[in-house]
Amino acid sequence: MGPGPITADPRVLRAMSAQLVGQFDPSMTAYMTETMALYRAVFRTTNQQTFLVDGTSRAGIEAALVSLIEPGDRVLVPIFGRFGHLLVEIAERCRAEVHTIEMPWGEVFEPETVERAVRAVSPKMLATVHGDTSTTMCQPLADIGRICRDNDVLFYCDATASLGGNTFELDAWGLDVATAGLQKCLGGPSGSAPISISPRAVDVINARKNVEAGIREHQDVAHGSRIASNYFDLAMIMDYWGDRRLNHHTEATTMLYAARECARLLVAEGIDRAVERHRRHGAAMLAGVRGLGLTVFGDVAHKMHNVVAVEIPTGLDGDAARAALLNDFGIEIGTSFGPLHGRVWRIGTMGHNARKEAVLLTLAALEQVLRAGNVPITAGGGVGAAQEVYAS
Amino acid sequence: MGPGPITADPRVLRAMSAQLVGQFDPSMTAYMTETMALYRAVFRTTNQQTFLVDGTSRAGIEAALVSLIEPGDRVLVPIFGRFGHLLVEIAERCRAEVHTIEMPWGEVFEPETVERAVRAVSPKMLATVHGDTSTTMCQPLADIGRICRDNDVLFYCDATASLGGNTFELDAWGLDVATAGLQKCLGGPSGSAPISISPRAVDVINARKNVEAGIREHQDVAHGSRIASNYFDLAMIMDYWGDRRLNHHTEATTMLYAARECARLLVAEGIDRAVERHRRHGAAMLAGVRGLGLTVFGDVAHKMHNVVAVEIPTGLDGDAARAALLNDFGIEIGTSFGPLHGRVWRIGTMGHNARKEAVLLTLAALEQVLRAGNVPITAGGGVGAAQEVYAS
Repeated sequence: MGPGPITADPRVLRAMSAQLVGQFDPSMTAYMTETMALYRAVFRTTNQQTFLVDGTSRAGIEAALVSLIEPGDRVLVPIFGRFGHLLVEIAERCRAEVHTIEMPWGEVFEPETVERAVRAVSPKMLATVHGDTSTTMCQPLADIGRICRDNDVLFYCDATASLGGNTFELDAWGLDVATAGLQKCLGGPSGSAPISISPRAVDVINARKNVEAGIREHQDVAHGSRIASNYFDLAMIMDYWGDRRLNHHTEATTMLYAARECARLLVAEGIDRAVERHRRHGAAMLAGVRGLGLTVFGDVAHKMHNVVAVEIPTGLDGDAARAALLNDFGIEIGTSFGPLHGRVWRIGTMGHNARKEAVLLTLAALEQVLRAGNVPITAGGGVGAAQEVYAS
Repeated sequence: MGPGPITADPRVLRAMSAQLVGQFDPSMTAYMTETMALYRAVFRTTNQQTFLVDGTSRAGIEAALVSLIEPGDRVLVPIFGRFGHLLVEIAERCRAEVHTIEMPWGEVFEPETVERAVRAVSPKMLATVHGDTSTTMCQPLADIGRICRDNDVLFYCDATASLGGNTFELDAWGLDVATAGLQKCLGGPSGSAPISISPRAVDVINARKNVEAGIREHQDVAHGSRIASNYFDLAMIMDYWGDRRLNHHTEATTMLYAARECARLLVAEGIDRAVERHRRHGAAMLAGVRGLGLTVFGDVAHKMHNVVAVEIPTGLDGDAARAALLNDFGIEIGTSFGPLHGRVWRIGTMGHNARKEAVLLTLAALEQVLRAGNVPITAGGGVGAAQEVYAS
């Protein structure tokens, strides 16, 4: 019940025990094509270039940034938590000229603030996180998308923590590239990074296409400045997922099975219904921790559905309480990073864990641990408040 | 039965259906530590820094190269197949000054040739492939290791195709860094890249340690030139696998289970016995294809145990024959790249496919396909010759 990685959906686990097939076996390439269509539904996009990057979530981020950014390009990053700092870090290593604006942890940006910065900086790209798990905040993106379009700025978003559990509209919000991971609301393991790329971003990337020696063919003329990473060279990776089937790498077969199954489950449930499920169980958890008498951190109106940050009660050893939850009740919750480390717990309700029994068991166990730690609590107040949400 | 990826060992598939645990759950970190020890046995090393890079085989290659190479460093790459070209490609993107020597496909280097080049170039690093699946050749490394030590050159090797099926001695041969993948002799899926790093290479990497913003702490002073990739920053990744447990990324849990199980099986069998098993089944397949009357490509004395390249008989449509094998018999074999595309088939005997029944069924099916293609063959000659190897 932490902020992710989470326990996987049992159906995803089962998919991962399937035997492997060859890289260019027609059934494998058919799975790849099917997976592309499934993630178009998940990202809410018509982007042809929607596929997987083989690695953890930050592999998707780095692939997007290193393929789009050329050294010296200006990049604007609005920071409202740890993962904004990560975007800065990666953009700097791509040798971008990085400009930042920052909000205190626990808040999000107003569109006007972003618009002023875009006008002042005139970046090639704006890169932001959608939901930053470090603070639980979810940045509204529709206005930022409009600002980026109006100012001809490429708009990248890291949707790892939010996708599948919160409304996300890649096309309607005017995003150019979004990336994610399986280990949050998608209910799978870390290790595969879904990505979707708009036609105009595809053009920027393909203007730098340099097919590697060893698999280069006659028609492959080198274009533009070579992308600094071979592994994350989206121009070649798109040709691996496309009709050409360029042999850039050997697709991580089992992780493809996992990513495909995560999206199949989400599409079968319906994206809107999955978001509503996360909203509902998130609301129950929020009411529950408040019902126990705990204080919630941050601007709750902008909280992601799937995670809540709770102030650790004064005088309680937060890590000892987490250890008791894990060792005595088999339930894991998280702390946070930087200024929030040791100050908040983060409790998730995402993917397969966005279930009534998971919420109620967590609240029941947390009550016991708080009581054992001599924290003044309302007995039964957590489960009771959550039950009221479920009954309404 | 292609050159990899291969069908996985059923025990590896089962391991991948295990439920996930949290990133810093004591059972997860214990698995990580256990996996490090297992891969020390597989690589034959005492290197503390032996762990997994989250991605396909070339993720391991790029992590090693980008973490060791600074822009302008001289790198020498002996090329004897496609994957030598890949090393050049990656080193160039790391902005190295790359020097190459080349052998015709199907041959390996004599140590004298390498030594002359090392003396002429004075590289910081020599990067080579051990077994290049594109040609099936296996480059002897012990002399090159001695040459590198004598000339104070860092020695990197890509052992993806060879590890577990051919003798590999990281420490005894004087290697500094080796990387691999699971989808060859280790009998698992693509998507995790074991790596091992010598203490002197660790020092080179840690001299460039720059912990990222967002998780940086007081003691983290920036060192040297920042590694160009965040994802492949081995200085931080070592701190994730080490006592500090720096939260660089969320380890790909299921792929860790897979990598751990692959190594457990290999260690339980005994590395020497696993190599001998690959030698035996590779010898049976080699005898078998010759027994059918086919011609083997390349310098067979330097062939990897686990794959054989067979000249496609004149007049036969090699791709149609491969399709018939796949569609009628459910057996996949490969063709190759560049100058060998359409000229040879590559037949593997690796991992779980290094089994008598897999070898004999493949030879029996191949005989039928060749006969249907009007290729003059010795009826029963393939299976018969393989059986003789097994009987000896």
